[in-house]
Order: sequence, then C-alpha cells, then structure tokens
Amino acid sequence: MVDWKNLDTLKAYDDLKNVKHVDLVSAMTGESGAKRVKNYSVKMAAGLSYNYAAKEVDDNILSALKALADEAQLSDKYAALYNGEVINTGEKRMVLHQLTRGQLGDNVMADGVNKRDFYLNEQKRIAEFANKVHSGEITNAKGEKFTTVVQIGIGGSDLGPRAMYLALENWAHRTGNFKMEAKFISNVDPDDASAVLNSIDVAHSIFILVSKSGTTLETLTNESFVIDALKKAGLDSSKHMIAVTSETSPLAKSDNYLEAFFMDDYIGGRYSSTSGVGGAVLSLAFGPDVFAQFLDGAAEEDKLAANPNMLENPAMLDAMIGVYERNILGYGSTAVLPYSQGLSRFPAHLQQLDMESNGKSVNRFGEPINYVTGPIIFGEPGTNGQHSFYQLLHQGTDIIPLQFIGFKNSQLQNDVNIQDSTSQQKLCANVAAQIVAFACGKKDENLNKNFKGGRPSSIIIGEELNPKSLGALLAHFENKVMFQGFVWNINSFDQEGVQLGKVLAKKVLAHETDGALAEYSKLLNI
Amino acid sequence: MVDWKNLDTLKAYDDLKNVKHVDLVSAMTGESGAKRVKNYSVKMAAGLSYNYAAKEVDDNILSALKALADEAQLSDKYAALYNGEVINTGEKRMVLHQLTRGQLGDNVMADGVNKRDFYLNEQKRIAEFANKVHSGEITNAKGEKFTTVVQIGIGGSDLGPRAMYLALENWAHRTGNFKMEAKFISNVDPDDASAVLNSIDVAHSIFILVSKSGTTLETLTNESFVIDALKKAGLDSSKHMIAVTSETSPLAKSDNYLEAFFMDDYIGGRYSSTSGVGGAVLSLAFGPDVFAQFLDGAAEEDKLAANPNMLENPAMLDAMIGVYERNILGYGSTAVLPYSQGLSRFPAHLQQLDMESNGKSVNRFGEPINYVTGPIIFGEPGTNGQHSFYQLLHQGTDIIPLQFIGFKNSQLQNDVNIQDSTSQQKLCANVAAQIVAFACGKKDENLNKNFKGGRPSSIIIGEELNPKSLGALLAHFENKVMFQGFVWNINSFDQEGVQLGKVLAKKVLAHETDGALAEYSKLLNI
Repeated sequence: MVDWKNLDTLKAYDDLKNVKHVDLVSAMTGESGAKRVKNYSVKMAAGLSYNYAAKEVDDNILSALKALADEAQLSDKYAALYNGEVINTGEKRMVLHQLTRGQLGDNVMADGVNKRDFYLNEQKRIAEFANKVHSGEITNAKGEKFTTVVQIGIGGSDLGPRAMYLALENWAHRTGNFKMEAKFISNVDPDDASAVLNSIDVAHSIFILVSKSGTTLETLTNESFVIDALKKAGLDSSKHMIAVTSETSPLAKSDNYLEAFFMDDYIGGRYSSTSGVGGAVLSLAFGPDVFAQFLDGAAEEDKLAANPNMLENPAMLDAMIGVYERNILGYGSTAVLPYSQGLSRFPAHLQQLDMESNGKSVNRFGEPINYVTGPIIFGEPGTNGQHSFYQLLHQGTDIIPLQFIGFKNSQLQNDVNIQDSTSQQKLCANVAAQIVAFACGKKDENLNKNFKGGRPSSIIIGEELNPKSLGALLAHFENKVMFQGFVWNINSFDQEGVQLGKVLAKKVLAHETDGALAEYSKLLNI
Repeated sequence: MVDWKNLDTLKAYDDLKNVKHVDLVSAMTGESGAKRVKNYSVKMAAGLSYNYAAKEVDDNILSALKALADEAQLSDKYAALYNGEVINTGEKRMVLHQLTRGQLGDNVMADGVNKRDFYLNEQKRIAEFANKVHSGEITNAKGEKFTTVVQIGIGGSDLGPRAMYLALENWAHRTGNFKMEAKFISNVDPDDASAVLNSIDVAHSIFILVSKSGTTLETLTNESFVIDALKKAGLDSSKHMIAVTSETSPLAKSDNYLEAFFMDDYIGGRYSSTSGVGGAVLSLAFGPDVFAQFLDGAAEEDKLAANPNMLENPAMLDAMIGVYERNILGYGSTAVLPYSQGLSRFPAHLQQLDMESNGKSVNRFGEPINYVTGPIIFGEPGTNGQHSFYQLLHQGTDIIPLQFIGFKNSQLQNDVNIQDSTSQQKLCANVAAQIVAFACGKKDENLNKNFKGGRPSSIIIGEELNPKSLGALLAHFENKVMFQGFVWNINSFDQEGVQLGKVLAKKVLAHETDGALAEYSKLLNI
C-alpha cells in the first residue's frame, strides 16, 4: 500500500538539505570532469542515454536523492498508476496513457472492457483507416486520393501531435515513409484557420477533429471554419472529416464524420500523443508502421521507468535531480535545448506537459503545501538559441538548469563540409562546447568577459531522431513529470487552473460583466 | 551630463522599497478595478495603448517609480544615445538603430558620413532593388520572375525579421501587398537548410545572406548549402544571392552577390529589424512602401519614448514597472502572450531582444553588481497558451508577470459566427477574461479549484496588427529594454556571454580537447 505524503514530511528530504553542495566548476574541470562524463550516464530505450555529469550532484547527493525516491515510494506509486489505481484524485480517474503503448502490469478493466484491448483496437482501426486512405480505397467524392491531413485541436490535441509530426517529417522524407503532409489548426484567432485553409487544397484534404469531450469551444469554432470552406468548394464536409473523441461525446456517433476513433477520460490531453489523438494524424502522415515504432519506443522507456533503483532509471533520476534543483537549490525554471531542428516544437510540448501537470499549489488531497512545485519550462533549438537568449544563461544573475538533447546523425543525411567539418559535426561540437562552457566557465580579468560557470545541464544523446527514439524521448519526459508530481504529492493529471478563464470569457460574450471586466470588454470592442 | 550609477546607489531606489505594496485582488475588484482600467492607460503610436491597470502599482508606487526614473536620468540617457554618445561601452560603439527609422536629435557623424543619410540611402537602394525584382527588371537567368525570397541568417538576422514577416503575412494577403513568399534558414543543423531547400523552387528564389561581420559560421555554412543546391540545378548562384552586411565585411564587394546592402557596427543584431537586415526581406516580400510604414510606426514610438514624464511615456513606464517587479517584488520571469496568431514568433524575438540585452551580471564599467537584472522571457500565442502552460500561471507556486497583446480586428477579416459571437470576439473575450482571472482570482472552498489571484499583467491593445502598429510594438519593446538597461546600469548592447561557447566549439572541431570536453566529443561522435 502506498502512502501519499507531502515532501516536507519525509525524513530523507531533511537529510538531503544537509548534504554538502557540489562545486560544479571544480567537479567538471580536468580528470574529474572526464570521469564524471564517463560514469554519470544511464541507458534509455532506442539507443538513447541520459548523461548528468554536468548536474550539481555527486555520489553523496545521489544517494540522498535515492533515499528520498525510496521513501517517497516512487516505484510503488508508478506501479499503482499502471495497475489502474485512481491516481487522478481531483477528477477521480485512473491514468492510463501508458496502456496505449504497452502493458506493464495488471489487466485494467473500466467501462466494462479491458483497457489495453480497447486502445489496441482503436490503434488497429486507425491503421486500417489510414491504409485505406493511402491505397485509395477511401477517397474524396471524385475518387481522388487525399494528399493532406489537417488536425483541428488545441492544447494537448495540438502541441504534442504537432511536435511529433515535425520531429518525424524529415526522417520520413528520407526513408520513404512520407505519405501525406499534415497541417494544424488550433487557435480561436480566425487568422489561424483562415491562413491554413488558404494554404491547402481542401478538395484533397482530410480533417481530424480532436476533442475528448466534443465540446471544446475553440475546436468546434474552427470546425465550422473548415465546414464553411468545404461547402464553398462545393464539397460534402462529412466525406472529409473524421473525429477523435470519447465514446460518450456528441461527436462519437454523428453522421458529420466519415469515422470516429476513441480515447477516454483516463488519458489527459497532454499525455495523449500515443493515443488516437496523435495516432490518427501520425498514421495518416507517415503510415501505421511508423506510428507503431513510435509506440514501441515509448513502451520500452516506460519499462525502464519501472526499475526501482533510481540510479538505473533515467526518468526517476532526471526527476529527482530536478527536485533537488527546484527545492534545495531554488532554481525556478528549466530551459529545453534540442540540438535538432526536427525538435523545433518539442520544447512547446514539454512546456505544456510539465507546467500544466505540475504547476500546482495544493497536494493531491486539496490541502495547501509549503514548498515550490513545477518550474517554468521554455526553450528553442540550438544553435539558434546560442545566438539569442544564451547570453542570459551564461552571464545573467539567475541560474537556469538546462536540458540538452543531441543526436549523432542528422535526419535528412544531406550535409556539406566547410572548414574541415560537416554541419552535423558543427552542431554536435556546439552542444558539447556549451555544456562545458556552462559548467566550467572561464576566468577573465575583464569581468564583462568573465564566465563564472556553475550552470548545470544534462544531455540526452541518441544516434538519430526517428520514430522509436522519439517515442522513448516523449515517454521519458512524461514519466519524469509523473515522478516529480509524486515527490511533490500533487495531482499531475488534472488542470483546474484553466477553468476560471473559461467561465469569465463566457460572461464577457454574454455581456454579463461589471467592474474591470466590463471596462476591458469595452476597450477590446466586445 | 549624465551620471551612470548602479541602481542600489540611488536614493529613490531605497525610497521605493518602503512604499506599501498593492493588494491586486482588492484593487482590481468592483468599482476600483473599473476605475483603474479607465485611468491606468497611456497612448502609444499607431493607435496602440498600454494598459497597466492589472499591474501591482498604485499612485504611490507610480510616483516612487517616476522619482527613480528621474534620478536614474532615463530621459537624458536616451537623449545621449540618440545623439550619438558611445553607449555600448563594452565594444566602444554608438547605438544607432533608431536612426534607421527617424532622427530624434543631433546629426550623428561616423565613418565620415551622416548616419541618418547613410541608413536612408540603404533603405532607398533596397527599395529600388525590390521594385526591380517585382517589376521583372531583375530576374533569373531565363528572364523569369523570382517568386520566393529566402533569408539566411541566425540570431538577430533571423528572429526579428522572421517574426515581422509572420506578423504581416496575413495582413499583406488581405490588402493586396503580398509580393513574394519568404522562407528562413538559420540553424547549423543541416536538416534546416535541407528541408527549406526541398520546399522551394530554387530556380525562382532569391537568397539574402545576412551577416554583419561576414564571418558568422552558421550563416556561411548555410550559404554553401544554398550554393550547392543552385549548382545542382544548373544555376549561377551569384545571380540568385544578395548580401546584407557591413561595408568592411568580406561579403561587401564580392562578385558572389547580385548586390550588397549595408548596415554597420552601430546596430546590434537584435535591434536590426528596421535596418537592411529586416528591410531587404520585408521589402521583397511586401514591397518597400509596407516596410516604410513599418519604419514610421517605429519612429513614432521612438518619439514617445523621449517624453521625460514617465507617466506619459509607455516604454519608460513599462520598463519601470518591470524593474519594480524584478527588483522589489522578486519575480524572475515574464510571459509574453499575444492574442494574435500573426505574432506567433514575436515572443521568440522578444526573448532574444530582452535576454541577450539585459542578461548581464556586471555594470557598464565591468564592475560587479549586487542586484538582479534581466528576467526570463517566454511565451506563446493565446488562446493556445490557455490550453497549455496557463495552469501554472494561475495556480503554480511562483508568480509570473504577464504581457498580453490584443487587437480588436483580425488580419484576414474572415470569420464565422458560432454561439452568437465571432472567433475574433471569442479571442478578445478570452484575453479580457484572463486578465481579470489572473488579477482577482476566485475563492473556492475546494482549494484545488481556488484561484488566489494577485497575478499581475498589462495589455497592449490595438485596432489591427498592420505594418505601422507592428513597428510601434517593436520599438516599444526595444525602448523598454533600453530603459531597463539604464536603470540597472548595464550595457544592453554587447553580448560577451556568447563568446566562450564559440571558442570551445572550435576546439572540439580541431580535436584540441581534454577532460570533460573530450569525453562529450566522443559521446557525440565528433
């Protein structure tokens, strides 16, 4: 039986406070630094590894973190989650996104079915549908093949799937797996839908409406944009649209869609990339086999997260180092810096995943807590960031922990040799150089050119960004966020903080406002 | 004569510490809130206004901030800058980006010329060139018109121009000002250049190589990608490329370019959108008249920033409220949240502008300082962000000041009416609702559904995002960052923090490494 306790009630947390801090500059300089890079590394799935040599930890801190992970029963709590306990206490729901890609524990029954079978069956139905679209068995009214797929969704129905699509687009081009271009409409700003619709050939486009509840206002509004555009082109919208939703939603059995694929309440939006929410668009864009490889990578990583030994468990280790940085060292944010153009929107996905999951001020029982929780997450791809905000990361007054990601090979494998190195080598050289520059710094008598160092980072290194490694990467961060939520004793799976804005926006539109809200409404001409 | 002093030596700073804080919840509730929204607003250029009703200030704090702005001589320092003093002390350079769009003060002579004349002349040369491309006087070797323009640059040569292009693309489509599609290549990751080149018709593309020094490694590497692609297509690359650079750079008089347009050392990369760096691509994409309107908006805003009365000077006021939040209230970051899809990359530009300018730990004389400087800047367009990281903004353990931006009208002016409101109305209703939700919160006995409020924000409101309002918006933030740099007594115009990484990356590529750097290089296969 697991025991849900606040972080500041754990003995190991008190012990951790007393462990001597690491001087990162001296730890990472010379032979000691070389040793750390060799030793402070743990294997992930799909050929990835998590290297934490440049984090402010040493064997003493690691063993204190391990003691804390043990006392917080992280491994047991993870098991409770994948065995189907009601982990989402706020909404009284199980948390089952991992069942969309594998089965780690007991059979989980809900809504009268075995949930693993349910998700597998939806994956199979999507695969069959995608294959029929690709083969030309499902076409537009004129019998012509669909060439473009457009996802209509917002938040978790947009950021994850969009980031995953961009992450695999180049790889799919090179490997012959590219089937259809994908576009995304998310914002309620009418310029978003209009611009996407102007950029595509609607007659050869298939649209995926994604809303678990079937009532997301932004998404339904954007759907009507699409229906208008299809009508104007003289097309029957019901022959161009599918839905990804829950079985109980108004979209589930509507004649407005060619087909509906199902997820359920046990999969939060930000954890839904491996469900039909990501599955439909990725299977249409790259084929069901690519989507299946992506799921395999995620499932393998989920398995590694079940290792009770923190030192061999990359997600748990990453999580605990993050807790140390947040609660002991007091750092308030983390920058995600992928040295891979394919991961250009991966930071935006992680921003939602992490900040929406762990940006909480009450514990899982609704009681106030007395320690800080989820940090700010932001980031852009390197080397672009180097020419942008890295100035502050190197010489600003606050310390910002860094999460690098790098791959030995590019995705398109098209390169040029300039000044005796390829672009890919330059890219990798830059990430290696940055880690050491941040950690070790460099003394200069001119303080304006002085680098204090002591700025911690970790790096995830892989061979290539492909479906499997992408799945592993995604699951790693999902599990990291989950473990941190366990440590902080919060519910990482609800999002009550988004409700108030929705309620007030409705009041504005109904002209039921007074005070400041009425004045802002006037200023904005509503 | 201005006196450059550290913030913590100013009497008004000590006084500010003793002014009673504002209880934002009560200030923004009821009649008091309505009054604040009406009164706490200041006019900007191009029909914009800066409303700071939901910031944690009142008349007492504002007058203390005004005293600080006066004692810090912000207005005199701004005058020193636009009159040509050497404000960039680190690199011993004047700071003249404002002369690219107007003249606020004395004639500034440098390099033997009047600098305003020089920038105007470059603007004129770019306009003539763009007109010839549009009219078909300048074509490819077959005499066919160019249809696409590709900017090759990184950092300031990429983020600003890219954000501005995206901000005007839809507007230009609606108003008949769209001339050519623009694309951007920035990252040294070979997948960036390869993917852009795969997506265009190189035979009808004109490329702009942007590098002030003419030696930026990423940019020269990407140039060779482009030259390879042109050669493979049997084309003469020198007939497809222009350069934007300084007169002393190796690119300035090279036969490899159709034409070279000039900027100089007095314009920092992140301040260069109104120089040829933004001018070439924007004039080609939308025509020189659109670029001129953009400059007009910026020039008008610059003029407003010269008002010595902080309460009537939107950039100075915004800057001082930011200093209050950073140094007195201790907030470490700011989220930029434009409710306008056109501004999708504007936060990324501001991230560079602000963090590279003010992420410093020494004053302008190279002496250490004892207070915090530039915050973290991050953001995504609303309403997308609402479904992503707003959970943490509403209910997280840290307070994050917010900068909203909203427009009454959409850019494409194509809309649908759903549930009695248009999408544009929904968009505006959401931003109004969010401001009040963040400021006032809402009590709930279930603490998981409780909103504490007290989360400060300001909003810039405009009629429409168009060239002029975009120019004003850009200049507002440039001037805000400048004023904050003055208050902190730092040099906002150099970026020594980017140097160490470059030096170490070269060592990696030359295999001149040891210790940790050698080990990382091995892991990354360099």
